[in-house]
Amino acid sequence: MIVERKSVDLGELQLDSGETIPSATIAYESYGELNEARSNAILIQHAFSGDAHAAGVSKKDGATGWWENMIGPGKAFDTDKYFVFCSNVLGGCSGTTGPGSTNPATGKPYGLGFPFVTVADMIRLQKGLVEHLGIEKLLSVSGGSMGGMQALQWAASYPEMCASVIPIASTHRHSAQQIAFNEVGRQAIMADPDFEDGNYYDGPGPGRGLSVARMIGHITYMSDDSMREKFGRRRRQMSDESSLFEVESYLRHRGGQFVGRFDANSYIAITKAMDTFDLSLGHASLGDVFEPFDGRFLVISFTSDWLYPSYQSQEIVRALRGRVKDVAYVELPSSYGHDAFLVEAGEQTEIVRGFLASTFKKLTPVGAAR
Amino acid sequence: MIVERKSVDLGELQLDSGETIPSATIAYESYGELNEARSNAILIQHAFSGDAHAAGVSKKDGATGWWENMIGPGKAFDTDKYFVFCSNVLGGCSGTTGPGSTNPATGKPYGLGFPFVTVADMIRLQKGLVEHLGIEKLLSVSGGSMGGMQALQWAASYPEMCASVIPIASTHRHSAQQIAFNEVGRQAIMADPDFEDGNYYDGPGPGRGLSVARMIGHITYMSDDSMREKFGRRRRQMSDESSLFEVESYLRHRGGQFVGRFDANSYIAITKAMDTFDLSLGHASLGDVFEPFDGRFLVISFTSDWLYPSYQSQEIVRALRGRVKDVAYVELPSSYGHDAFLVEAGEQTEIVRGFLASTFKKLTPVGAAR
Repeated sequence: MIVERKSVDLGELQLDSGETIPSATIAYESYGELNEARSNAILIQHAFSGDAHAAGVSKKDGATGWWENMIGPGKAFDTDKYFVFCSNVLGGCSGTTGPGSTNPATGKPYGLGFPFVTVADMIRLQKGLVEHLGIEKLLSVSGGSMGGMQALQWAASYPEMCASVIPIASTHRHSAQQIAFNEVGRQAIMADPDFEDGNYYDGPGPGRGLSVARMIGHITYMSDDSMREKFGRRRRQMSDESSLFEVESYLRHRGGQFVGRFDANSYIAITKAMDTFDLSLGHASLGDVFEPFDGRFLVISFTSDWLYPSYQSQEIVRALRGRVKDVAYVELPSSYGHDAFLVEAGEQTEIVRGFLASTFKKLTPVGAAR
Repeated sequence: MIVERKSVDLGELQLDSGETIPSATIAYESYGELNEARSNAILIQHAFSGDAHAAGVSKKDGATGWWENMIGPGKAFDTDKYFVFCSNVLGGCSGTTGPGSTNPATGKPYGLGFPFVTVADMIRLQKGLVEHLGIEKLLSVSGGSMGGMQALQWAASYPEMCASVIPIASTHRHSAQQIAFNEVGRQAIMADPDFEDGNYYDGPGPGRGLSVARMIGHITYMSDDSMREKFGRRRRQMSDESSLFEVESYLRHRGGQFVGRFDANSYIAITKAMDTFDLSLGHASLGDVFEPFDGRFLVISFTSDWLYPSYQSQEIVRALRGRVKDVAYVELPSSYGHDAFLVEAGEQTEIVRGFLASTFKKLTPVGAAR
């Protein structure tokens, strides 16, 4: 399946901060066909450092999508049955307007002048895309990690526009520990003299700082067990005289790779959006947030995920059950840590496939054309 | 209790690497009095970023010791009964020879030219101090975290010289995850252009990198729970327009503080010693390492410590039990994470006090003068 990134300019975007982005572009990919009733659309949300390339083989560079094991013909998100699409987040660096985009007021990249954006802003822009595609109601919104936060925000912002929501390995608000890890990443970037207060687009850019930030991230995405299994205390010979632990060379490699594909200002903008995300803020309780939503919820977490531990998913489930909402919750056994949502396709597939099929059936009148 | 740091030049030190330090100085503090039989000496080992100032009030700057709640009259390490002393590690930056010391061959600081040192090297130097003090056998060697590794190394290197060992929140070898966190800290330091390949003693030094490294450390020392309790999602107003999460301002503050008191080259040297520490290397099993040791072991770990999880202490206990050694193991409930060994004085006190008293009784012939 060869796929090509598309993009739409959705015009002016009002932000929660009161500021405005005069011309907001959103990049997306889609897989499968929208049915006549436009009732089979599933919106996939990427995690922090992901992008719109969720599945298939990129026409541009041949890369496979980040959720290739979950999206495709016969897979969990079955493209023989559903129209599946994924967009790059606002503030990102893979086609959607972000800090690296040109600020029309100055003719230069926004840099740190890019307005503060929230997860709700990301979803507001995405709603424009959904409308642009002529979809009135999404069959489902799903994603892992920050993708799960965006799915939750859909249920909160536009409850009438989604029939179901599948947040995976996610949370309704970051804990102090999650904020702390993000903050150290931001500090590593800002400590790099090549950061130049975010105006580095004409220079080398804060590659060393960004690499360190990414290394921290990678540790938090794995579990103690999965790191032991993958690396143990094995060493890699670097020269006749020196060797590194394999885990050291892996982290350095992954850190360096990241610098080539990610923008440091996006790192800061998106992690800030994650840290300030707090779905129940301004409500008496999290249950209140979901009160207007009458669709279905499937919440998934993983036993070894210590970055987004199961108790955070369970808080969401409790809030929904307190309002007698239609919610299924599964804690899947896995040793992969937070990465499990990307890796453990087997068990997720059974659960997601059944959930989508029954939701679709419920939504579609008997005898109606698909 | 006003205390003053002492130091001794112990001359040439042979290292595991085959290199030699021509003139090795060790800095230490002591509390309480050595008895006539010299049988009441307890050696305290500091953790990674600690120093010899374990207890009392420093004559130099009025600071209290890092284990003040555990060492003193009537405390766990009772200075009314025992002679307690603590030395700064080889490779450190608080009085003992390390990368910031003058290399006699060049007349300049060693910097990264400081030889690679191991935990066994640290203990070899410390043995010189013990002999210098005229002590033939230590009543006990104890410490938390890297201090526990040093205690374990004593039992392995000089089994006849210690009657008991108390490793707390420690391990016999670092896991891939522990190595990974240390490596990110080292990379943060080395990414700082002011690091200058370790030759920064005439310049500003890699303060930004060292601060980021320390911030990472602080997250790993606390638990998810203790961070939630201490910071939650509370914010601190920084100016009329900006606020930070309290956890962010705390980490920045602690990172900055650390720069004033710690040497980046020591950070690298000591974390490398920790990462390469592997007590059973070259032995058929960990049990083999402890075979010659006929003293007593008290192993302590804490439920919420995810940096040095209980299973690592339990590996040590199993190895000792397999050789029918005298070992007591306690897993203490605590929400403080790895910091628990510094904070949870109450429960540790009861256990350590009883263990030391019975060890001392066993060691001292009935009716013998103390």
